[in-house]
Amino acid sequence: MFLEKINCPNDLKSLNTKELQELAKEMRAALLHRLSKKGGHFGPNFGMVEVTIALHYVFESPKDKFVFDVSHQSYPHKMLTGRKDAYLYEEHFNDISGYTNPQESEHDFFNVGHTSTSISLASGLVKARDLKGEHENIIAIIGDGSLSGGEALEGLDFASELNSNFIIVVNDNDMSIAENHGGLYKNLRNLRESNGTCECNLFRAMGLDYAYQKDGNDIEKLIETFEKVKNIDHPIVVHINTQKGKGYKIAEENKENWHYCAPFEVETGKPIKAISGENYSTLTCNYLLEKMKQDPKVVAIIAGTPKTIGFTEEKRKLAGKQFVDVGIAEEHAVAMASGIAKNGGKPIFATSSSFLQRTYDQLSQDLCINNNPATILVNGASVYGMNDVTHLGIFDIPFISNIPNMVYLAPTSKQEYFAMLDWSIEQNEHPVAIRIPGNGVISDKRKVDTSYDKINQYKIQETGSQVAILAVGDFYQLGENIVKTLKEKLGVVPTLINPRYISGLDKKLLEELKANHELVITLEDGMLEGGFGEKIASYYGTSNIKVKNYGIAKSFPDRYVADELLRQNGISVEQIIEDIEKFLK
Amino acid sequence: MFLEKINCPNDLKSLNTKELQELAKEMRAALLHRLSKKGGHFGPNFGMVEVTIALHYVFESPKDKFVFDVSHQSYPHKMLTGRKDAYLYEEHFNDISGYTNPQESEHDFFNVGHTSTSISLASGLVKARDLKGEHENIIAIIGDGSLSGGEALEGLDFASELNSNFIIVVNDNDMSIAENHGGLYKNLRNLRESNGTCECNLFRAMGLDYAYQKDGNDIEKLIETFEKVKNIDHPIVVHINTQKGKGYKIAEENKENWHYCAPFEVETGKPIKAISGENYSTLTCNYLLEKMKQDPKVVAIIAGTPKTIGFTEEKRKLAGKQFVDVGIAEEHAVAMASGIAKNGGKPIFATSSSFLQRTYDQLSQDLCINNNPATILVNGASVYGMNDVTHLGIFDIPFISNIPNMVYLAPTSKQEYFAMLDWSIEQNEHPVAIRIPGNGVISDKRKVDTSYDKINQYKIQETGSQVAILAVGDFYQLGENIVKTLKEKLGVVPTLINPRYISGLDKKLLEELKANHELVITLEDGMLEGGFGEKIASYYGTSNIKVKNYGIAKSFPDRYVADELLRQNGISVEQIIEDIEKFLK
Repeated sequence: MFLEKINCPNDLKSLNTKELQELAKEMRAALLHRLSKKGGHFGPNFGMVEVTIALHYVFESPKDKFVFDVSHQSYPHKMLTGRKDAYLYEEHFNDISGYTNPQESEHDFFNVGHTSTSISLASGLVKARDLKGEHENIIAIIGDGSLSGGEALEGLDFASELNSNFIIVVNDNDMSIAENHGGLYKNLRNLRESNGTCECNLFRAMGLDYAYQKDGNDIEKLIETFEKVKNIDHPIVVHINTQKGKGYKIAEENKENWHYCAPFEVETGKPIKAISGENYSTLTCNYLLEKMKQDPKVVAIIAGTPKTIGFTEEKRKLAGKQFVDVGIAEEHAVAMASGIAKNGGKPIFATSSSFLQRTYDQLSQDLCINNNPATILVNGASVYGMNDVTHLGIFDIPFISNIPNMVYLAPTSKQEYFAMLDWSIEQNEHPVAIRIPGNGVISDKRKVDTSYDKINQYKIQETGSQVAILAVGDFYQLGENIVKTLKEKLGVVPTLINPRYISGLDKKLLEELKANHELVITLEDGMLEGGFGEKIASYYGTSNIKVKNYGIAKSFPDRYVADELLRQNGISVEQIIEDIEKFLK
Repeated sequence: MFLEKINCPNDLKSLNTKELQELAKEMRAALLHRLSKKGGHFGPNFGMVEVTIALHYVFESPKDKFVFDVSHQSYPHKMLTGRKDAYLYEEHFNDISGYTNPQESEHDFFNVGHTSTSISLASGLVKARDLKGEHENIIAIIGDGSLSGGEALEGLDFASELNSNFIIVVNDNDMSIAENHGGLYKNLRNLRESNGTCECNLFRAMGLDYAYQKDGNDIEKLIETFEKVKNIDHPIVVHINTQKGKGYKIAEENKENWHYCAPFEVETGKPIKAISGENYSTLTCNYLLEKMKQDPKVVAIIAGTPKTIGFTEEKRKLAGKQFVDVGIAEEHAVAMASGIAKNGGKPIFATSSSFLQRTYDQLSQDLCINNNPATILVNGASVYGMNDVTHLGIFDIPFISNIPNMVYLAPTSKQEYFAMLDWSIEQNEHPVAIRIPGNGVISDKRKVDTSYDKINQYKIQETGSQVAILAVGDFYQLGENIVKTLKEKLGVVPTLINPRYISGLDKKLLEELKANHELVITLEDGMLEGGFGEKIASYYGTSNIKVKNYGIAKSFPDRYVADELLRQNGISVEQIIEDIEKFLK
């Protein structure tokens, strides 16, 4: 086995072509081993095996520097840079993250998980190299799907100004997560079909030199291609046609479903754990499809991740022109939603909390200053969301709720979520964001309101005294548990409040609490700093009411266990009851 | 005079070419009248007179819908849509804003002030129109300078997917605010030089149809061009070459200085009020130039607005390759700064608070997760900054200070600002943002620290009791005034604290205050919600210390008077003293 002997990129330089091809096979087997057992990004890595071998064969990492865009195609790179054990041996699976990570290896330069950043990050390496008068190669590796993102296009446009060695490898597998959307993909197709010769060329139009390699899974040809551009004295795009999922037939045939995989049976491709029970993606999709039938003005928008709200290929067909995938282009999505709302449509844009960060200014400028009634669905905005440092969903309350005019809603049950969503779609007064609950689909018997017109009116769910608990969104159930334990253990009957609106204060209710409460507790499933609880603390700042805020302290936790993280932040029924007990003494 | 009779676009449809040309002259005279007396965006509007006449002549606004990018070229549009008096008569100057504004006119569809948004906003109008089965023309008008912004490029890429009437007018005057930067501008030049015929074409590479008009200040030819695309059934780019500042020789000859103007003498172009005294732009530029001489790794980065830190053409030349204008591309700027820092350079990226919003995700993902030691200078982050609703500088503390790892510094004097800047450039541990003071260049005799390594260590400037005042950044002087008045009027000697770090708490100091203080006051020059003061309130939430936060309540104020806005928010020495007096009773 060759792979076992590769401890650094140098170790593959003595191999001949046939041996390198053998190595590629071993690497795919190792990928299959890890991914079938642990899950992860599948298609991008299977497609990139040969490109990665050729890159490490030709260049001298880490002196020469690779920057992988989004880096979910960096597994082969990890294998060749001292981290093969994490693919070969189950006991080492957790040694590594799913993305490039400078804490893991000197061959990685950035923690990367959002798309479209590689060209800009790498151009910084280029600029610093030039200022220092050094001469290594800097190579950005970006997939076609990531090219539609604003940051990638800004980087591509700026690259030609650098005027020195800079190699941008475009890994074109003719797919984003789902199919690509955007006019530039027609140009990529024309380039592929003309073997890179067609005159109209996006990259040349951006001022860059250009080379094409149609055999993106042929090591020999790739080595030849990279040898030609090594030590080049100006920026160049090397456009390579690879096959997503290459080498695993089931993935080759269903690229969208095999972009990312859960653990699966290698022979059949079937997931090992069947997903059961309700989930908000499917429920939201079905609700929206029904809504679309009733009203042609309803339109769902997503940015490259259709399944975030359950839009499988089949359901996208059902929605027809009432479904828009803008590609990876969140900024465009929010601005377009604002325009649709302005002209009488009913847009719903859905993405994850982490990716919504990419469109903060559009939320503020394009949407909220204009006060257009678009709906934003925020997925994974929870400590229970994705736990990679680059995909954390815990920052949404600070960055969304503090934008003026935005009504940010936190439903506490399935019934409340759909009531809020329905209200939002039908109202004409406010930009509205809704936090999709992160703690599973919970139904209960509480009656929910159908109108949310009375902005910032909180709801008292249980009336008590001494202690009031403001339990936001999917921490409502935590609030219920605290109430129960307080009654049982301390004989205290607290007031339980469902704030519903994260973006403002119900000052009337907060005033009324003063009459017979001493302590107000806030519970929010997200970062404390800049969040909901601090506003309550500020409101009561000069009063005799004491306030204790619970949430995650400002930090970038990585690959955490949710319950552990919560406990570290003092968030569990036991810890909170203990705090209250101390206070009431 | 024709202009006086134009109350709506219909009124110009009966004019013949010669009369329209006469109208253009009158419009330029009106522009000169207003701009020489009041100031405003000069070059973009002078260049757009004929295009705007032709657009309104050919299309039927407001049924047909125009969306002006950044909208600082929308003055001629305002003149032709019922708002001519605001250009003709001094007493009506304040009737209008400097940007499109739906509250002013049914011919305006969005409040716009940030660049690069028009294509995406207009594509929303297109999508809604199509869903409703209607058929009006939708026209986005975007300048060449705005094209480098990520949102514009995302919009351009997506436009071709719309597959129905959509006209994108590219107003190419071969200038951004300063000269253009980015590879795409080479392509625009090739297109201009080939009269639109060169095969490699950015817009076609984005999947769009394309037309070129070289005579962008010739009404007759423009009308002909627009007639051809009116009611077109697919998206098309109409690329028009105009002359920035056209019709005012001084502006034609110095496009950069005449992008925006203060009131000036019409004959000479000289500003009426000479600018005197120190300003942070010039001071910062001179400091950086000195720093660059000492260290070739120091590099200043700006995004299309070089003068934000004083880099005039002359000083840009002095800086050479140690100065980078990335064009309007803030996302790229921050990511590149992170890359430069990673590779051993010392980057300083400067922009205004409002424009920095455009790069929230890059601050978080590209910079702060990677903890690279880049410096971000935040200009106009103050109630004393720009007061148009689209350019407010009051949101920076919430959106910057809550990003983990970011050290956000608020200097309270000239000496402290430069000490912080110097420390930031030389340290290797943290991404640092520095708020350039907004209340003028203030020197005082306080000794400032040279190192800020002790993160979150506040500084006690005056020791007292009962009341502690945490006076952040450029509200430090307000704090001093309150101290003085408290002593004089109430005989109270309070503690005055300069927090210096906006992004974290000095818990040791806050604990110590408990010993002999009853009230803690926070003063911050920005929005309260999500800001600094709320963190202090949360910290003291369960203690006996009372906290009162002063700042601007969440809102989008427009064209406000700073002192009035502050007073409305309870921020003046008198109001605060009154609050304290009540509390101490």
